[in-house]
Amino acid sequence: MNIETPPDWVNEVKFDGDGLIPAIAQDASSGEVLMVAWMNQMALIETTQTGRAVYWSRSRQKLWRKGEESGHVQEVVELRLDCDADVILLKVNQLGGIACHTGRASCFFRKLETTGSKVAWTAVDPVLKDPELIYK
Amino acid sequence: MNIETPPDWVNEVKFDGDGLIPAIAQDASSGEVLMVAWMNQMALIETTQTGRAVYWSRSRQKLWRKGEESGHVQEVVELRLDCDADVILLKVNQLGGIACHTGRASCFFRKLETTGSKVAWTAVDPVLKDPELIYK
Repeated sequence: MNIETPPDWVNEVKFDGDGLIPAIAQDASSGEVLMVAWMNQMALIETTQTGRAVYWSRSRQKLWRKGEESGHVQEVVELRLDCDADVILLKVNQLGGIACHTGRASCFFRKLETTGSKVAWTAVDPVLKDPELIYK
Repeated sequence: MNIETPPDWVNEVKFDGDGLIPAIAQDASSGEVLMVAWMNQMALIETTQTGRAVYWSRSRQKLWRKGEESGHVQEVVELRLDCDADVILLKVNQLGGIACHTGRASCFFRKLETTGSKVAWTAVDPVLKDPELIYK
């Protein structure tokens, strides 16, 4: 696909000033929100072409084919766009059952909990696999 | 609460250069992703104090107490923070069953669909209430 002349469905997507859009990955079966990452036009197009989630890594400034190191590929079941066209929702099959680099199913493993007068973000979900074994 | 000296749990949240963080609202029962909006420090603190979702409206540049006009208040069941501390997830009870200003349950009502050679974002979820009746 010639990225110089993107198709209409790509032009409908409102990328921000940096050419990025937030993308939420949600487990297609359980509905669990797994992670949020960013996509640029190339990442979005490659995602639809390959059926696997591809993001733009802002820290590494390059395409991030989710699972390329960890094996924790996300097979895309469905792509959705919100009413403002500025957020993407991916319903995915999360291979390995782990989306987070900490070895947890979801990146949203910290819950705001109040114990007495103390309020804290508390890790409430288990580590399923040691990260050192994931990125070995 | 003195916003000049926010508590530790607020300081752990990584707001962006504009002082904002994306916040995903998810239906606590069905798991449906309802919408994404933005929070600043005040919105986050007021959300925890009132138990109702409060966002920062970037277009209106003011606090947006979700449902203040529509009645479609979001009662917060749980707040989560992701591994990078730069996205908030709210599990909510969506009063009225409508989160979107278009009168739909979710803002993510457009699905990428392929029909023959045509690829398009297609509205696949029903309008539950005429927006003119919501914001009357």
